[in-house]
Amino acid sequence: MSTLQSIKEHLAETARYESILSLLHWDQQTYIPAKAHDYRAEQVTTLSGLIHRRSTDPKLGEWLDEAAEIGDDSIQVAAVIRHAKRDFDRATKLPAELVEELARCTSKAHQVWVESRAANDFAIFQPMLEQVVSLKQQQADAIGFDECRYDALLDEFEPDMRTSEVCPLLERLRSELVPLVNAIMDSGKTAPANILERTYPVDAQARFGKEAAAAIGFDFQRGRIDVTHHPFCTELGPHDCRILTRYDEKFFSSAFFGTLHEAGHGMYQQGLPADWYGTGPGKYVSLGVHESQSRLWENQVGRSRAFWQHFFSIANSYFPTALDGVSLDDWYWAVNDVRPSLIRVEADEATYNLHIIVRFEIEQELIDGSLAACDAPDAWNARYEKYLGITPDSDANGILQDVHWSEGLFGYFPTYSLGNLYSAQLFEKANEELGSLEEQFSAGEFTPLLKWLQDNVHGKGSCYSAKELVERATGTALSHDALMRHLADKLNPLYRID
Amino acid sequence: MSTLQSIKEHLAETARYESILSLLHWDQQTYIPAKAHDYRAEQVTTLSGLIHRRSTDPKLGEWLDEAAEIGDDSIQVAAVIRHAKRDFDRATKLPAELVEELARCTSKAHQVWVESRAANDFAIFQPMLEQVVSLKQQQADAIGFDECRYDALLDEFEPDMRTSEVCPLLERLRSELVPLVNAIMDSGKTAPANILERTYPVDAQARFGKEAAAAIGFDFQRGRIDVTHHPFCTELGPHDCRILTRYDEKFFSSAFFGTLHEAGHGMYQQGLPADWYGTGPGKYVSLGVHESQSRLWENQVGRSRAFWQHFFSIANSYFPTALDGVSLDDWYWAVNDVRPSLIRVEADEATYNLHIIVRFEIEQELIDGSLAACDAPDAWNARYEKYLGITPDSDANGILQDVHWSEGLFGYFPTYSLGNLYSAQLFEKANEELGSLEEQFSAGEFTPLLKWLQDNVHGKGSCYSAKELVERATGTALSHDALMRHLADKLNPLYRID
Repeated sequence: MSTLQSIKEHLAETARYESILSLLHWDQQTYIPAKAHDYRAEQVTTLSGLIHRRSTDPKLGEWLDEAAEIGDDSIQVAAVIRHAKRDFDRATKLPAELVEELARCTSKAHQVWVESRAANDFAIFQPMLEQVVSLKQQQADAIGFDECRYDALLDEFEPDMRTSEVCPLLERLRSELVPLVNAIMDSGKTAPANILERTYPVDAQARFGKEAAAAIGFDFQRGRIDVTHHPFCTELGPHDCRILTRYDEKFFSSAFFGTLHEAGHGMYQQGLPADWYGTGPGKYVSLGVHESQSRLWENQVGRSRAFWQHFFSIANSYFPTALDGVSLDDWYWAVNDVRPSLIRVEADEATYNLHIIVRFEIEQELIDGSLAACDAPDAWNARYEKYLGITPDSDANGILQDVHWSEGLFGYFPTYSLGNLYSAQLFEKANEELGSLEEQFSAGEFTPLLKWLQDNVHGKGSCYSAKELVERATGTALSHDALMRHLADKLNPLYRID
Repeated sequence: MSTLQSIKEHLAETARYESILSLLHWDQQTYIPAKAHDYRAEQVTTLSGLIHRRSTDPKLGEWLDEAAEIGDDSIQVAAVIRHAKRDFDRATKLPAELVEELARCTSKAHQVWVESRAANDFAIFQPMLEQVVSLKQQQADAIGFDECRYDALLDEFEPDMRTSEVCPLLERLRSELVPLVNAIMDSGKTAPANILERTYPVDAQARFGKEAAAAIGFDFQRGRIDVTHHPFCTELGPHDCRILTRYDEKFFSSAFFGTLHEAGHGMYQQGLPADWYGTGPGKYVSLGVHESQSRLWENQVGRSRAFWQHFFSIANSYFPTALDGVSLDDWYWAVNDVRPSLIRVEADEATYNLHIIVRFEIEQELIDGSLAACDAPDAWNARYEKYLGITPDSDANGILQDVHWSEGLFGYFPTYSLGNLYSAQLFEKANEELGSLEEQFSAGEFTPLLKWLQDNVHGKGSCYSAKELVERATGTALSHDALMRHLADKLNPLYRID
């Protein structure tokens, strides 16, 4: 068997175990009986251990060294080797004790965070945050970096992206977003958002959400939707992508836009080359690009007037009582309501990025040591005041609102905003190349856009880095311009801003 | 680490993989997307291979040899070693080529059987049956036996039970069953069974079935019920037992008695000692005993008049239209309708065992070589005429009706009837020890019976052989007497037989 063949078979077998692990997690979020969680944790630990041993198998390291000397005969093969090497190096560079210590510490930190948030008292969480930050610094040092420590953490979620590239992108975005949000606030106009808080029966929401997900192109032969507490999208194999969503009878948006969002993630997974499943060419390129696909279908598509020109009458058939007397104009504005708020996950399309920038700035300072954990709440509140014009009334509604840091996820937050930048730039280009997408959407036609994304994004897997991919697809380096154009084009007319 | 500790940890880890494999199968029967089956097969193959390597690991063999010399300090430890040794020997005695050949052959035989049954033509299946029989003979020879080849196959499903023990039991049963069924036929009386073929809405069936399963003691904190095409009960961990059932709007019995049946299997699993999960003391003792638990709740309990004295008014609240004007007496007789039929899975409590005896006799002859595959249909039809008084109108309704032989399951059928014998004998003893179970059932009280079964059967795991277990619980060696008393006591009055 050739070296390349050995590597591919090793990766394919590991991918089978990883996808089985995803099934264990999916079941845990959906159908598992109440008392089966403890044993499930044992199953997960055992399988994770097996996957770790396979990922750090010295045999794999030797094959990868041999492959590096042979050279690659195609862009796909190069991606197989590059990604396998990257994963192997990241896995083997971390001392086993550090991995265990991180697992132990974040498991405890998560519990303490829950407690701390319930008590609305940051002081309870502070010592755990200090420990997590210290371990993440050690992790970054073990992995290594050229410019700054934070790079080593960012690289886990957004490979080949440097902090020095993300900072100017998000600073420019902020410098234009803050005035836009201020102008909206100063307009004195408010969206009729309370329409969304009428009664939307859960059954009808589920059927409408499924119909919309199928209409935009989520393939139910290769996936499904179930109900859970924490919405996500997971992959149990090359043809098995499962969305989890949740329903709130008294709020239309959470399930519907959540479903479009997760379906966007799902269609990306479904568009990855199945033949390369488990290797670079079959893998999503970065969390930012993954998020771009969910945001594109949720925001650029799902909150467009054209989308609702098609779907509003269908919505009326599902929710005749709630939508009685509501005009398309009112509905369109309601789903594009912009107003600064304290909670990230409830934020609108425009202010969302300001929430991310707060976190991105603070976590960089925590990791480089220029901000102490004890000072983080003040830093948080000051930035909310400065960027969003509001000050958190409590730590629970402030620095304690997100689970990420307790789980050791540093370097993750900026990928949300990168996703918004990627999505706007990709959508603008698709619109330019495909003629009027608006006309297509208003006729319920979403296939050309999906096909464009499959050709330019999904089908490429990880053959290019995220920034190369987007530049190849759009002909332009990543910038904040397309997102700002998208927001201004939509929001200026709604809020009568000149 | 002590030898015993090493063995226990090895078995516990293997059990975690086996229970994960069960999740893969469960998901495949319930929620998997249509196009995900091929990759699921790859996941199953990979995980099965891992389990096989662990089960035949020479290290395990060495530990077991060491343990044999140390001796055991408790009945549980003895069971751990005895079962591990038995499984290891069975797994290692089979040459890898034979295992692969059997997998390949039965996989093909299954496809051919489907085709043959659809075409109603045994000749299509005959060459595959010959191959399967030949491989099962080789398997029996590789495993070894003292008295007859069939013993080696029977032992897989009913450990420590010999053909020479089963034969006289089932012959005596047959010699008394045939006259009972004849007397019922001669009575000229027929049950009002068409009541069961009215319209029973699926939703109401599902809710009623769940209510009944919970009432008899199935623990929904440690299990659940889902819908499938092929009902079964599976175990995904010590506290995770899942029932699959199916609903037919036009036939009450299949889902309801199917649910009681699978709940019986499930309560046995739930009653096994969780601390010994994956080792002898935590495992079911035999398929026969497993079947005794399902049959006991389905037949001895679920088809008793006392059960319906409690549940008939509840059934009326679920199915007011179907049960309008139906008396408890009619209902009780309908669910105890006895009449010879061609199809085993639709057979009643009395004639069911005659279907089994036909198969048991024929498969013994196939395995010992005294019956050629080409002569099996005639042998089948002749026995149906002799034991049930009816001749199959086709191979599809005759020898081709069951999937078992195509899957290589020889030695499996007799465990169904052994289950009926065990269940009657256990129930009779429980009734004697607990005072009147009838009174308890008619008050909706099933806990004492379940507790008795937990103490005498479930909690023992595999510490004793099946026959020891039943003899310890009932004070009597296994016989057909209790089952015949149960049937006569119920059926003689219904059919006015003296």
